[in-house]
Amino acid sequence: MEIAIAKTNKYASRESGDTAEIVERPGGGMSVILADGQGTGRGAKALSMQVTAKVTALLKEGVRDGAAARAANDFLFATRYGQVSATLDILSVDLKTNTVAITRNGDTACIIETPDGIRTYREAERRLGLHHRTRPWIAEEPIVPGLRVLLVSDGVANAGLRTEQAPWDLAELATFIPRGQNAAAIADAILDEAIRRDKGRPGDDMSGVALILREVDPAPLLIRRMSADLPIP
Amino acid sequence: MEIAIAKTNKYASRESGDTAEIVERPGGGMSVILADGQGTGRGAKALSMQVTAKVTALLKEGVRDGAAARAANDFLFATRYGQVSATLDILSVDLKTNTVAITRNGDTACIIETPDGIRTYREAERRLGLHHRTRPWIAEEPIVPGLRVLLVSDGVANAGLRTEQAPWDLAELATFIPRGQNAAAIADAILDEAIRRDKGRPGDDMSGVALILREVDPAPLLIRRMSADLPIP
Repeated sequence: MEIAIAKTNKYASRESGDTAEIVERPGGGMSVILADGQGTGRGAKALSMQVTAKVTALLKEGVRDGAAARAANDFLFATRYGQVSATLDILSVDLKTNTVAITRNGDTACIIETPDGIRTYREAERRLGLHHRTRPWIAEEPIVPGLRVLLVSDGVANAGLRTEQAPWDLAELATFIPRGQNAAAIADAILDEAIRRDKGRPGDDMSGVALILREVDPAPLLIRRMSADLPIP
Repeated sequence: MEIAIAKTNKYASRESGDTAEIVERPGGGMSVILADGQGTGRGAKALSMQVTAKVTALLKEGVRDGAAARAANDFLFATRYGQVSATLDILSVDLKTNTVAITRNGDTACIIETPDGIRTYREAERRLGLHHRTRPWIAEEPIVPGLRVLLVSDGVANAGLRTEQAPWDLAELATFIPRGQNAAAIADAILDEAIRRDKGRPGDDMSGVALILREVDPAPLLIRRMSADLPIP
């Protein structure tokens, strides 16, 4: 499996309010955790770090994704009195259940490509932290080679809107990427195109996440790789 | 900055006892956390996951690396009565202190390349979990473009030993990699060469970590990337 994330900030803003993590699951597999804190600057960043830290800790203890999202909501609601909110997306390849699970609260768009076709979702459940009880949107797919999942923040999905373009159709966004590309190239291509639609000046923070399940690798040596590349400001 | 990890298991063993994570630091920057649990199979894997989860949670709360390593030791010692041990390495780019910090307990080898030359270390402090008080080995370097840090597990440092080769000299290991390569290519090259030295059959789990600090990027858009690639067994 390949997972890749590419992100950039709103034009001319130094700090973005979102945080992304890739973590190993205790039962095998990986999870991507994306959180975006309400507001801008330091406060938003601290909030999204708090949410990803809470969810990371729970997933590491073997807690299922939906329960971790509910816990993050209740934790925020209890400690911040329903005054601040955050979005949360968890994209997991779970080798214990042999499924890919997508858990969403907020306005990230989601594209699922299976051998049966493409499904796109703009709506998810409400943001975390504002209500006493909040449930996540959840989708689960069996692990099959060729499965692709894309998550894009609203900054990507709405790119070009302010420069009088038509909204970026999600199905078009999916087909825009040729098959056979690796996950890193896909995440980069989505981000590049979103930046281009905003004429080189992103109107909002932008994140793109790509997950690909390849054919099972017959190689005798299983090699795992992780990397991170971020500019020092 | 670029950080990359490449890992493989001991030949013909399905599960490795080590865990690697890349996490964002609350004050800015990234940390790599590497842990290797004593023994083999499930127990070792669960142990290393527990250690990385503990350290991740502490770093996310803003705890300094050395304190997190001490806490992980005390936690293991308290809950497992000094009966099990784990190695721990934390490699951090800390934008709050403007330093690269390396914190080690165990037998991972470390290579630091600064504009002043190459330093290599085989020894570190003792493993976590066995003693009441254990302190980490710590090195700190200012953030300067061109700095490279390599961490390699003993499976890499000792590769080829059982096939009557001379031990892999750490300074040679460093110079073996041409400058100008990106971090992912370096981690891959180290792992490839270690596997070659073991005649294609790694005698032990192998991990290579590469950190590079590049020149400060003058581009107006700061793009951050993360990726993970692991075979589904």
